[in-house]
Amino acid sequence: MTQKFVYFFGNGMAEGRADMKNLLGGKGANLAEMTSIGLPVPPGFTLTTEVCTEFYKNNNNYPASLAAEVASHLAEVEALMDRKFGDPTNPLLVSVRSGARASMPGMMDTILNLGLNDTTVQGIIAQSGDERFAYDAYRRFVQMYSDVVMGMDKHSLEHLLEQKKEQRGVHLDTDLSATDWKELVAAFKERIKDELGTAFPEDPQDQLWGAIGAVFGSWMNPRAITYRRLNNIPAEWGTAVNVQSMVYGNMGDDCATGVAFTRDPSTGENYFYGEYLVNAQGEDVVAGIRTPQPINRAKATNLPPMEEVLPECYQQLAAIRSILEKHYKDMQDIEFTIEKGKLFMLQTRNGKRTAPAAIKIAVDMVAEGLIDEKTAVKRVAPEQLDQLLHPSLDPKAEKTVIAKGLPASPGAVSGSVVFTADEAESEAKTGRKVILVRVETSPEDIHGMHAAQGILTARGGMTSHAAVVARGMGKCCVAGCGDIKVDYANQIFTARNGVVVKKGDMITLDGTLGEVMLGAVPTVSPQLTEDFNTLMKWVDGIRRLKVRTNADTPYDAKVARQFGAEGIGLCRTEHMFFDAERIAAVREMILSDDVEGREHALAKILPMQKGDFIGLFREMKGLPVTIRLLDPPLHEFLPQGEKDIEDLCKTMKVPVNALKHKIDTLHEFNPMLGHRGCRLGITYPEIYNMQVTAIMEAACELVKNEGFSIVPEIMIPLIATVKELSVLKQNAVAICDETIARYGVKVEYLIGTMIELPRAALTADEIAVEAEFFSFGTNDLTQTTFGLSRDDAGKFLPFYVDNNILPEDPFVSLDQKGVGKLVKMACELGRATRPNIKLGICGEHGGDPASVIFCHNVGLDYVSCSPFRVPIARLAAAHAVLG
Amino acid sequence: MTQKFVYFFGNGMAEGRADMKNLLGGKGANLAEMTSIGLPVPPGFTLTTEVCTEFYKNNNNYPASLAAEVASHLAEVEALMDRKFGDPTNPLLVSVRSGARASMPGMMDTILNLGLNDTTVQGIIAQSGDERFAYDAYRRFVQMYSDVVMGMDKHSLEHLLEQKKEQRGVHLDTDLSATDWKELVAAFKERIKDELGTAFPEDPQDQLWGAIGAVFGSWMNPRAITYRRLNNIPAEWGTAVNVQSMVYGNMGDDCATGVAFTRDPSTGENYFYGEYLVNAQGEDVVAGIRTPQPINRAKATNLPPMEEVLPECYQQLAAIRSILEKHYKDMQDIEFTIEKGKLFMLQTRNGKRTAPAAIKIAVDMVAEGLIDEKTAVKRVAPEQLDQLLHPSLDPKAEKTVIAKGLPASPGAVSGSVVFTADEAESEAKTGRKVILVRVETSPEDIHGMHAAQGILTARGGMTSHAAVVARGMGKCCVAGCGDIKVDYANQIFTARNGVVVKKGDMITLDGTLGEVMLGAVPTVSPQLTEDFNTLMKWVDGIRRLKVRTNADTPYDAKVARQFGAEGIGLCRTEHMFFDAERIAAVREMILSDDVEGREHALAKILPMQKGDFIGLFREMKGLPVTIRLLDPPLHEFLPQGEKDIEDLCKTMKVPVNALKHKIDTLHEFNPMLGHRGCRLGITYPEIYNMQVTAIMEAACELVKNEGFSIVPEIMIPLIATVKELSVLKQNAVAICDETIARYGVKVEYLIGTMIELPRAALTADEIAVEAEFFSFGTNDLTQTTFGLSRDDAGKFLPFYVDNNILPEDPFVSLDQKGVGKLVKMACELGRATRPNIKLGICGEHGGDPASVIFCHNVGLDYVSCSPFRVPIARLAAAHAVLG
Repeated sequence: MTQKFVYFFGNGMAEGRADMKNLLGGKGANLAEMTSIGLPVPPGFTLTTEVCTEFYKNNNNYPASLAAEVASHLAEVEALMDRKFGDPTNPLLVSVRSGARASMPGMMDTILNLGLNDTTVQGIIAQSGDERFAYDAYRRFVQMYSDVVMGMDKHSLEHLLEQKKEQRGVHLDTDLSATDWKELVAAFKERIKDELGTAFPEDPQDQLWGAIGAVFGSWMNPRAITYRRLNNIPAEWGTAVNVQSMVYGNMGDDCATGVAFTRDPSTGENYFYGEYLVNAQGEDVVAGIRTPQPINRAKATNLPPMEEVLPECYQQLAAIRSILEKHYKDMQDIEFTIEKGKLFMLQTRNGKRTAPAAIKIAVDMVAEGLIDEKTAVKRVAPEQLDQLLHPSLDPKAEKTVIAKGLPASPGAVSGSVVFTADEAESEAKTGRKVILVRVETSPEDIHGMHAAQGILTARGGMTSHAAVVARGMGKCCVAGCGDIKVDYANQIFTARNGVVVKKGDMITLDGTLGEVMLGAVPTVSPQLTEDFNTLMKWVDGIRRLKVRTNADTPYDAKVARQFGAEGIGLCRTEHMFFDAERIAAVREMILSDDVEGREHALAKILPMQKGDFIGLFREMKGLPVTIRLLDPPLHEFLPQGEKDIEDLCKTMKVPVNALKHKIDTLHEFNPMLGHRGCRLGITYPEIYNMQVTAIMEAACELVKNEGFSIVPEIMIPLIATVKELSVLKQNAVAICDETIARYGVKVEYLIGTMIELPRAALTADEIAVEAEFFSFGTNDLTQTTFGLSRDDAGKFLPFYVDNNILPEDPFVSLDQKGVGKLVKMACELGRATRPNIKLGICGEHGGDPASVIFCHNVGLDYVSCSPFRVPIARLAAAHAVLG
Repeated sequence: MTQKFVYFFGNGMAEGRADMKNLLGGKGANLAEMTSIGLPVPPGFTLTTEVCTEFYKNNNNYPASLAAEVASHLAEVEALMDRKFGDPTNPLLVSVRSGARASMPGMMDTILNLGLNDTTVQGIIAQSGDERFAYDAYRRFVQMYSDVVMGMDKHSLEHLLEQKKEQRGVHLDTDLSATDWKELVAAFKERIKDELGTAFPEDPQDQLWGAIGAVFGSWMNPRAITYRRLNNIPAEWGTAVNVQSMVYGNMGDDCATGVAFTRDPSTGENYFYGEYLVNAQGEDVVAGIRTPQPINRAKATNLPPMEEVLPECYQQLAAIRSILEKHYKDMQDIEFTIEKGKLFMLQTRNGKRTAPAAIKIAVDMVAEGLIDEKTAVKRVAPEQLDQLLHPSLDPKAEKTVIAKGLPASPGAVSGSVVFTADEAESEAKTGRKVILVRVETSPEDIHGMHAAQGILTARGGMTSHAAVVARGMGKCCVAGCGDIKVDYANQIFTARNGVVVKKGDMITLDGTLGEVMLGAVPTVSPQLTEDFNTLMKWVDGIRRLKVRTNADTPYDAKVARQFGAEGIGLCRTEHMFFDAERIAAVREMILSDDVEGREHALAKILPMQKGDFIGLFREMKGLPVTIRLLDPPLHEFLPQGEKDIEDLCKTMKVPVNALKHKIDTLHEFNPMLGHRGCRLGITYPEIYNMQVTAIMEAACELVKNEGFSIVPEIMIPLIATVKELSVLKQNAVAICDETIARYGVKVEYLIGTMIELPRAALTADEIAVEAEFFSFGTNDLTQTTFGLSRDDAGKFLPFYVDNNILPEDPFVSLDQKGVGKLVKMACELGRATRPNIKLGICGEHGGDPASVIFCHNVGLDYVSCSPFRVPIARLAAAHAVLG
């Protein structure tokens, strides 16, 4: 059997179908489908993507049978249209369009009016009775073809056009006459021959094969190659070519062209939304020279709608809208043309839509019986929900972008600039909205971050301190904004373009795009609709994976519960150490030279930590709470600046030299790989002992006094060897059991570990002997697996992503090949030792849809993410089930 | 069949054998063996280690059959000795000794003279005709037994003994009479009853079972448990108990006791080496109260040798020496006692020996036909060779240790203290020997490290900069010496005990022990003997694994070749960047803001790098040379101190602010995980381009002009993803091919990568598509797999090792469970993609014997280590084959 390379469509019959996108490209497949279901589509045919593949495989030669297939299908089109390609009196004109599986900017797009020459133009004049129309179409064809097929510099022809207008003393193309266009066609051809040394092809067959060759050639042009590289599209996919008979929306006032959506793509409302222009070509609608008119009276406007101007065509189009929605069962984006009162469909595809529209359309379509709930859930992309959960810039507002950084935490906020956390707090107390601008933030800045509307940092990546904390708070943040230079001394920052922003100046941040703007740009508020709730109910019915949240305070916990969190997957106890009241005791502990001194200081912190845990347990009402024991190195709790050191010495009544010596002793070259996590617990057991006591006393008190049911999950961080865990677990169990006995209650508890070092994953079978749960700390696991500091990666990671050396930032979306391999291995090893081990993830990846799907697939029990990403994770978890 | 719990030996017959150490313990097995081969061993029996295991398994109860077995074997001993245990007139006395598989301090050792009481002592008086001897033996038994079996405070009895001497007005035990001892025995027993409330057991059977119980009980005492934990000895092994009839070396001048080695354990010379004392007990030889005499005239001495004093016994002993060596085929360490002219053997075991002795004995024994070459190779421990390759402290010299640090690089050196690299260099030029003392070293100190005899640092671990560079240079280094506090300003350092050492003071370092001593302690030089060369020839005939060296200079390469290196496994090109001439150009490169500026600066470095490679290639004479492209982050090449910054600004004529800003920009939180390795190559391709050009021009020139045969191996560091490697390989191949074409020669080359990040190991199948070789950079791989910075680990790693949380420093010996799992995985994945991929290791582990054996087992092609460890690696590689 010979391979079929060309697929015909026309007159209600098509060889292709909508599901043949891989072979026919998106455009070709949908033209065939529309034809099959009886819609008026100008007849034509599609050269398959396999032609493209064969072409490159065979050293730029077409398959032998192609020419005959094209000729026979062209004859079918001629028969249907009752015109002949190249015929002097009744010529057929065609368009030639590329159409790959995925839309691909950078490739040749379209050539219209193909088949025109000095002879056939006479036939068009005869057909249309409009000489000016015919020569205008002709000159457009020559311009377009010479540009994209022949490689002519298009400015050269435009220059001739300008000269002609000057000659005629007119300003607009529309003021030129038929004769002017005719003369220009001749002048264009002459100039082409002069410049290229080749004549413009007169033979329509030459024109057709030239255009087909240009489409296939453009598949390998540098722009297309770059686009494919950046979007991971394999070169083997190839492109298809669509050859279709021309129809015209610009042959008079009974002609029109337009685009429409079967529902409002912005709100999702169920009405027919579209725009059209009378006597115009498709390109005029998007070009913006004339203002398009609405197709109907659904929304009030002054312009006459198509519903009134061309009522019959409109009724036909409205009927088609209904057919298309019933057929595709999704909102469609369509293009149409009306030639002399006759409607033609030129394109249909699933329409892009905003997040609110996606939700409304999905929920409505279930009510209408068009789709089921599972399909509705799949129709909303998890990433889209982010738009819903934060304010966003008013899309109609003007904005002056002065710098671009990383989109670290979404939302849009305005405020006046401050440069220190203390200022942020004091200004906020007076009711002013402020943006905290720092080179980078540290845990000491948390109160200022709380007080500010948003945070802008010059350094740091997507998982820098500023980014992680801001996301946790649901606060807008632009991080790692290398475009700005912060000058604390002069209380200014300078943007790359030289704009200087002073303290007190108003700026706006868009944390979703990473943009910094001058002034206060208006924003629109998020709204969680009834439809949203309906959809999320379906989501929860589908997903297997539980979704917890990372929360350190009762407030965070409360927000997360509202977003549907089913527990706390990560409570970072060190955040509780920075509170003003406590930091003094923490520092006293660090500066103590012996166990007694440290225990004395820790005893002061104990009641406060206990209070924290009581608050968290109460808020979570019996849902699981995983509490991580102290993780960061101790030097993070000591001041760094000269003045802060002196202040602290005064407060603590210690000599400056002693404190400096301690800071010096604690200094680390690579704190990320230093004396932290369980290494602190091993060398200073009194710290973890205090924390475990606080956790268990909190739990026992609530159980005893308030009848709570709590199973605290105590998590020991940074385990590399099972021995570390067994030593620390033994200590913790002793304290837990002693506390439980002291209160005389029954409380169960779990002791587990973070898997955040490659060695822990590699030896998870050993570690599971001790660990009752694993929580994958994929932030640190990514850092160590890649050997990549998230705080330093800003210098090269953006370059890596831009140049596709990494497909994406591995701190944003889990690297499944490398880090994911370790996660998978650890799950298998852990379960082999302890079949009922609880498995979760608490890195930033817990809120990234692709990573959530990975977590579902490797069989984790839950993901944990910042409160504002909980709905995203829930939806992604449902998508994971639906596949 | 009932389990047999007791093994008899005596009168030329034994139920045990030397290879039954697991069952009988080392001592019991060898007593049995000696008995079987006809040597005079006092008869006795061994309670097996299984008794111990059963004892603990059954809640501290002995197996039911044990008592009967002991009784029947005791009867056999009685029959052979013609004495009866507990008999008033002709009593048998026994010793009870523990004996585990491995020698274990912390356990009960020995009880002598067991069976004595007020009745049997009369029998001993009758047997020996020496009342004083009998009561002396009796009181010793009471002291020993009450101490180790009954838990009596021994000072209490010693106090009574002192009182008695005062009473009698004498100073020495030997001045006390039979009556004195008799009275003391009574007084001892009374005191024991007073203090413990229990009478001293009079029944010899009670004594025997008490002693046996004490041995088994001591297996679980805290000291023994700690020792087992620290030495990874399983509790299940258990200990055996040896019950043996007593013989006495202290019954008169026809009695003696001694220890001997069948060859000189210090030099390995083949003569009978030993010491003895007339009329003495075994403990007197080691106690040092009397000076032992040599057993023969082999080495001149003033004291009468046993050869003359007890010629017959000596001849018998000399014959036994020969029997033992022929039987055990190894040098033996023996204990003997002569009772009234009759020789008894009490112990034999393989003798411990120095490295030179190990080599000489092994080589000699092959010549004597005792062992084959493979056995000889196995007889020398690879670690031992370290002693041979460096000077060591004269073991006879006095030393005042003032501080202890890490034994970072072996050897022993003296010199006067300097605190800067420049001083080290200028002092060394005047011919003075200096020790460079720094808080820590950096690449800028290399010239000073070269000039110094040794290096002492206050901070940093076994793989800190100082340690790694010093080992590479074969230079003595004590690193991470937290005992000293360096005060650069006052040019002093203070040791923990308060000793202040000034600039210019003489100190001595022992890099093998990590000790710092005041003054110049004499040392002895290493000697590589003919025997060494003979042994290494056998080694090379056995091993499969190749051994390369890590070398950055022709000098290093030359030294390594002398030690038998078969190529360079790692040449770190950045070390060439620190040379005074070049660092200026390097800094110019770093400070340039554009590619042109960087290329201009790099062009100055190119000819120098090329010269380096020509030197290396010439030295290695066609052996493979792996060159790693630039690895460290750029900030390592910029000064840090205020003054250095100002100086550099003057030299380079740049404003201080500009330089500071650059330094600030390049600052990293975690340089280990920062902008380094291939990340530099990707973002600044011009740097690697220069280096590749230098490598290939060097190779081409030598091939063209000197007819060399060279296959340079270009190694790209810090690869995490195959994409990084494919981009950099493409650049490198283009330059290589261009250079080869330019010279018009044929040069093959390989391009490969270090596997030093977990992600590289996990995706080694992908990386092997591009990489022609893998070299495991196990230093960094250990850092990232453990999440452990080697520069910071000093704060907790020693604690971890001391407390057996880690069995050993993973930077010294490869962590086979974790890091090794990644290495193994990467080997398998790499070979699956590219079956002939070359695999090696270039981390510090390449010179660690256990790690070398691991490398052999996972099938690497070579290991690479610092020049001075090459012989160690060769020997370890041979051991790996021999298993």
